[in-house]
Amino acid sequence: MKATAIAPSNIAFTKYWGRKDETLRLPENGSICMCLSNLLTTTTVEFSQGYQQDEVTINGGGLEAGEAKRIIKHLDRIRKPAGIDRKAKVVSNNNFPTGTGLSSSASGFAALTLAASKAAGLELSEKELSILARQGSGSACRSIPSGFVEWLDGDTSETSYAIQIFPPGHWAIIDIVAVVSEGKKEVPTSQGMQKTHSSPFMAVRLSKMKEKNEKVKKLIKEKNFKEFGELLEQEALELHTIMLTQIPPLIYWTPGTLRIMKLTPFWRQEGIPVYFTINTGQDIHLICESKNVEKVKSKLSGLDFVKDIIVNAPGEGARLSKTHLF
Amino acid sequence: MKATAIAPSNIAFTKYWGRKDETLRLPENGSICMCLSNLLTTTTVEFSQGYQQDEVTINGGGLEAGEAKRIIKHLDRIRKPAGIDRKAKVVSNNNFPTGTGLSSSASGFAALTLAASKAAGLELSEKELSILARQGSGSACRSIPSGFVEWLDGDTSETSYAIQIFPPGHWAIIDIVAVVSEGKKEVPTSQGMQKTHSSPFMAVRLSKMKEKNEKVKKLIKEKNFKEFGELLEQEALELHTIMLTQIPPLIYWTPGTLRIMKLTPFWRQEGIPVYFTINTGQDIHLICESKNVEKVKSKLSGLDFVKDIIVNAPGEGARLSKTHLF
Repeated sequence: MKATAIAPSNIAFTKYWGRKDETLRLPENGSICMCLSNLLTTTTVEFSQGYQQDEVTINGGGLEAGEAKRIIKHLDRIRKPAGIDRKAKVVSNNNFPTGTGLSSSASGFAALTLAASKAAGLELSEKELSILARQGSGSACRSIPSGFVEWLDGDTSETSYAIQIFPPGHWAIIDIVAVVSEGKKEVPTSQGMQKTHSSPFMAVRLSKMKEKNEKVKKLIKEKNFKEFGELLEQEALELHTIMLTQIPPLIYWTPGTLRIMKLTPFWRQEGIPVYFTINTGQDIHLICESKNVEKVKSKLSGLDFVKDIIVNAPGEGARLSKTHLF
Repeated sequence: MKATAIAPSNIAFTKYWGRKDETLRLPENGSICMCLSNLLTTTTVEFSQGYQQDEVTINGGGLEAGEAKRIIKHLDRIRKPAGIDRKAKVVSNNNFPTGTGLSSSASGFAALTLAASKAAGLELSEKELSILARQGSGSACRSIPSGFVEWLDGDTSETSYAIQIFPPGHWAIIDIVAVVSEGKKEVPTSQGMQKTHSSPFMAVRLSKMKEKNEKVKKLIKEKNFKEFGELLEQEALELHTIMLTQIPPLIYWTPGTLRIMKLTPFWRQEGIPVYFTINTGQDIHLICESKNVEKVKSKLSGLDFVKDIIVNAPGEGARLSKTHLF
C-alpha cells in the first residue's frame, strides 16, 4: 500500500480567483493553463497499520497545523471510497520554492491525489483524479492532465474538473520563471480568495471570462503568439487589480516583480517577442516561443535581483513513479 | 503689464482620470483635494510689444515643443478676453521635481493663469480663474481656491470649476511626500487619460464616484481620520487599477512606490495611523494627522531609496506675489 507520484505545477493563462462553493472548491470561472515540465512535486504515500497517526513531511520539514489538517482531510477523501482506515506516511518534495506563487499547492495536491489513491488501491480515471485533486486545492485539478489544459468550472463536484485541450507537443511555447521571491507571501491564496467580491470590479470580470477562455483556446489552436501574449498580460494585470481592489487589498507584487513587468515591453521593442504572466504571488513567468528562450534567459541573467531562472516546456500531467522517497 | 503668481500643487483624495470633453477638459467625475503648502510653482508673466514671440522658460531651461505649444495656447485664452495681442515672456520655477506625479501641471497652470490674467489687466473672480486654469490642465482648477477643495465636474465649461469646501485651518492633516522618482514618467497624464475606457472597469468606477465624493466630504467634515485614510488608499488603488487595465497598460509605480505601499499597513500595525495615496505618477503621499508627522518622517528617513521628504499642510491657493522672477 505504497505509491509515489510526480505532478507538475501549471501556469494559468486565464486565472482561477474566487469560488462559488468554498467547501467543494468550485471556481467562479473556468480557466486555461499549461502544465510545466520543470516545476515538480514528488510525493510518496504509504498506508500502514504500523502508523499511529498521519505523518506528513514536506521538503524535509514539518508543516503548520493548518497545512497538515488540509492534507489529512484530503487523505480522508481517499480513505473513504477505498474503505480503509489505516494512517498514512506522506513524504513530499518540491524542486522549486514553496509559497511564492509558483503553485506548489497545485503540484502538491495533484501528486498527493495520485499517490494516495494508488496506495489505497483505487483505480481512478483522469476525470476522477482531477475531481479529487480539486477538492484539495482548486488549481491542482489542472495538474492531472498533460499539456494544455482547461478546467471546466461546473456547478457540481462531478462537472468541475480539468481536461486536456492540446497535448504537450502541440505548440513549442516556453515558460521561463524568474524567481524574485522575498519570502513566503503573507496572505495565502485560499484566504485571499474569499474576499474577491469586495472588489467593485469582480462582477465585470466574471461577466467576460467565458468569452476570454474561448479566445485563449482559439489563439492556442491557431498558435497566434502575439495576440495570445497580449491577452496573457491583460489577464495577469486584471487578476492583480481584482486583488488590489479587494478589502483589505492584496499586494503580491514585490519590487522585482514590478521591475520585470516594466522591462518586458522594452524587450519587445528590442525585437524579442515575450510576454509576462503572474500567478497569485511574486514570481513572474515570461512566456516566449522556444526559438527565443536564450534571448529571454540572457535578459534575465543580467538582473541581479533574479535569484533563479527555471525554463519550462509544456509538460506531462501527474504520473506514477517507481522510485519511492522512503 | 507684468505679474507674478505663486500656486500650490494639490493632492487628490478622489482622483481625476478621464475626460468627457477633451478640448474643454471636462472631467468624467468630480474630485476632492487639498492644496499643498510646500509644493509650489512661481510664475512671472510679462506682456510687451518688445517681445517678437512668446518665450517660456521653466526651471531655468527650455521645454519640449508640445509643452510650449500648450502654454502658448493658454496665453491666447487670456489675450483674447483682454483684447491684447502682445507676446509674452514667461518664467516659471517649481520647488519640487517635475513630471513624476507631483502635479506640476496643476500648480504650473494655476500660477500661469493668475499671473497672465493679472499681467493682461483682467480682474477675474476665483471661479473665472478656476475655469480658465482647468482649460490649461484639468487639475490646475483645484489649485486656485485654498485649503480643501472640490472640483465640480459640470457639463459645460461654465459649470466645471473648483470651490473651497473647508479652509486650510479646518483640519490639521499633513501630506508627507516621499520622492522616489526614477526619472520622468514615460507616458504623460494627458495622453494616458485618453484611453480610460479601454479599461473594462472604468464604467463601474464612474457609477460610484458621486457617492464616494459625498463620503469623502462627510469624513473631512467629521475629521474621521481612520475611515478617511482607508477610503484614500482604496481610491488610489482603484485609480491605478484603471490605468493597469487600460490598453496599453500604464504602470506608473516604481519599486520605491511599491515598497512604501507595502510598508504602510505595517506602520499602522506598529501604532502609527498613516495612509498612502498616489497620483498619476511614482511619488507617494503619506497622509497623517499633524501629531504623527515626526513618526512618519522617521520611518521614511530609514529608507535609502527615498530621495526627498516634503511635508505639506493644507495650503493656500493661487496668490499674487510682489517679487518677480525677472
